[in-house]
Amino acid sequence: MTAVLLTVGDEILLGQIVDTNAAWLGDRLAASGVDLVRHETVGDTMDAITGCLARACADADLVVLTGGLGPTHDDLTRDAIAAHLGVDLLRHADVEHTLRERYRQRGRDLTETRIRMADVPEGVEPLPNPRGAAPGLWHPGESCVIVAMPGVPYEMKAIWRESVEPRLHELRPGAVVHRTLLTVGKGESDIAADLGDLPALLGDGVGLAFLPSLGTVRIRLTAKGDDVDEARARVDRAAEAVRQRIERLVFGEGDTSLEAVVGEMLAERGLTVAMGESCTGGALAARLTRVPGASRYVLGGVLAYCNSVKENQLGVPEADLAEHGAVSEPVALAMARGARELTGADIGLATTGVAGPTGGTPEKPVGTVWIAYASGEGERAVRLQLSTDRGVNIGLTVTATLDLLRRQLLRRGA
Amino acid sequence: MTAVLLTVGDEILLGQIVDTNAAWLGDRLAASGVDLVRHETVGDTMDAITGCLARACADADLVVLTGGLGPTHDDLTRDAIAAHLGVDLLRHADVEHTLRERYRQRGRDLTETRIRMADVPEGVEPLPNPRGAAPGLWHPGESCVIVAMPGVPYEMKAIWRESVEPRLHELRPGAVVHRTLLTVGKGESDIAADLGDLPALLGDGVGLAFLPSLGTVRIRLTAKGDDVDEARARVDRAAEAVRQRIERLVFGEGDTSLEAVVGEMLAERGLTVAMGESCTGGALAARLTRVPGASRYVLGGVLAYCNSVKENQLGVPEADLAEHGAVSEPVALAMARGARELTGADIGLATTGVAGPTGGTPEKPVGTVWIAYASGEGERAVRLQLSTDRGVNIGLTVTATLDLLRRQLLRRGA
Repeated sequence: MTAVLLTVGDEILLGQIVDTNAAWLGDRLAASGVDLVRHETVGDTMDAITGCLARACADADLVVLTGGLGPTHDDLTRDAIAAHLGVDLLRHADVEHTLRERYRQRGRDLTETRIRMADVPEGVEPLPNPRGAAPGLWHPGESCVIVAMPGVPYEMKAIWRESVEPRLHELRPGAVVHRTLLTVGKGESDIAADLGDLPALLGDGVGLAFLPSLGTVRIRLTAKGDDVDEARARVDRAAEAVRQRIERLVFGEGDTSLEAVVGEMLAERGLTVAMGESCTGGALAARLTRVPGASRYVLGGVLAYCNSVKENQLGVPEADLAEHGAVSEPVALAMARGARELTGADIGLATTGVAGPTGGTPEKPVGTVWIAYASGEGERAVRLQLSTDRGVNIGLTVTATLDLLRRQLLRRGA
Repeated sequence: MTAVLLTVGDEILLGQIVDTNAAWLGDRLAASGVDLVRHETVGDTMDAITGCLARACADADLVVLTGGLGPTHDDLTRDAIAAHLGVDLLRHADVEHTLRERYRQRGRDLTETRIRMADVPEGVEPLPNPRGAAPGLWHPGESCVIVAMPGVPYEMKAIWRESVEPRLHELRPGAVVHRTLLTVGKGESDIAADLGDLPALLGDGVGLAFLPSLGTVRIRLTAKGDDVDEARARVDRAAEAVRQRIERLVFGEGDTSLEAVVGEMLAERGLTVAMGESCTGGALAARLTRVPGASRYVLGGVLAYCNSVKENQLGVPEADLAEHGAVSEPVALAMARGARELTGADIGLATTGVAGPTGGTPEKPVGTVWIAYASGEGERAVRLQLSTDRGVNIGLTVTATLDLLRRQLLRRGA
């Protein structure tokens, strides 16, 4: 099955918005075994949308549109699909009812502008939007399936997961099963070396793809076949084999994040954590606390950007700072201890380093970082040697510190 | 002048990378007065690239390609442009020399694979790459100009700024001059109301566009004409008129950020700052410290996620917490005072609120936030009522707190 993706919206072409939907849908289509051959973005004009739609339907089995389904006069995707199919727009009673209820609950009227969202091209099925007003659209044509969704990312994702993926699954002969293992601690080429001949052993039965991002690598395993249970069994065996070779690197599966996994590990163990941050400047705490419910296990922390805060708040000995410098193992450990003692948390974490772009020396060039873990049961510090980019260094240091915490929690057991 | 943008790369279609180049180039093209009519992304195959290239040249005056210029066998943009133009690839002596020097300095060989980057389609001009190996390409055809750049964002941006924009400027009759005013504190529609009839007064002479993002709005003023000095004078008059109506909202111009502007204001005044953060969880400190050189004015701070840290580290009176709750004006002010006193900073900032998605009450629903500023010269607290999304609330709170600091610094004078 091949697909073309069409993004509709002047605001995307003008660069006012980065189109993150495209990457998300590209990933989901690949995971569903659909071959995305092209992505196009066009502005809010009928000619542009219908022109691209005709070309896309000629080139692919599936056309996915995002954007242009809202209530305003420049939302033209409904009209363009109707024109392409040569049908009229009809007011859909169920959609109108849903819209009327939605606005009533919010104390607002279903204006003449908003009611346009209940217009559906003849022969097209509206798809419920659990997170917003405008419904998606689904047209199962003979030679080409057309699906349209709003451009708001969380609305689009909800419609895709709840309505589109099940319909695609029904349409396609055979099954595509996949699992995604989330890893941290090594890069793509080191993981490939650890896996050795495993990808070859898996043979044609299971595909293996590496999807790297800042400090983490997702490993996606995919199996295709006529029998979904058989394909699932193949993927499960492959996932087990991968896990056996890189057990310590795998922190989770699917859509979760390292901070959410580590947070859940803390909550399960009834442990609390506090931070003493220097070079990460609050970014470690920000990553941990962006997870809803982080107040269950994050007590607090200290941003110790200058040495006097390291001394006075975190109790770092002046002698350590003088002898070893702020970027050193003794200072990192003292900061982690200090954060723990100051707040009464079970665990203290610390970061200190040269984030860049300036401040490097021959002995401690830009990218030199110490991270530390301290608890009542033991301590650990790790030296990192990162890049020359400040933003990259801060991000990689946060990921490495969360991974240090994860590994220590694994050693403690549940 | 119309343009089509072509992104080349399987990794983009597969969703392994979000294509941020497209938004950046869309913005730059709009700023140059070029009308981007379509953006397409295709995979690394000759047929896909040459097909899109032919269609793009038929539809637009300018085709901009990114990606596919590297050394590996799946980098096909050079070959596709040569095929489209019906010319051969020729080894370019100057480019080969530059590449050889580049690799020699890094102690690496110019391998047979890497030397491919010196192949240039006949009649095409190589554009120097100040940040990487692969040169850009420029072909000033009669009916269609073709420009190609590597996909690595900082390489692409450097080539665009240094080589492409000057050439575009030579090509286009007349001048396009623009200025971008950066604002914070009001949304797009409120700013439009403040400006009132100003856009109409500006007439056809100066275009005005609002580019909103999380908590800030960029206002872009554009003037076109035959005489660059005359166009610049019109834009300058318009910028002055806009500034007069919304003076307090404008924090800067061009490519800078609110945190960089506020940081520079602190440095100029010789002032230091410290944070007491609750609901922002370190994100305020992280925003301030991602600016290189932030250690000149950021002393430190406290992440006070639980009430005991608010009491013990920041000295928030237990009575205030009991009587008013953690999300209240007295607690926000006490946290700001505490951060200042604890670190010896000139200024203390604080955030406390219900970021969500849970934790709201009828009196203090999700999105209720207090932010505060404290200095030896005065104090100020502001209540915000934000959205229901945790990530959005954290981001908007950080921006509002930086703006509070900015306004107080303006009152103090330089």
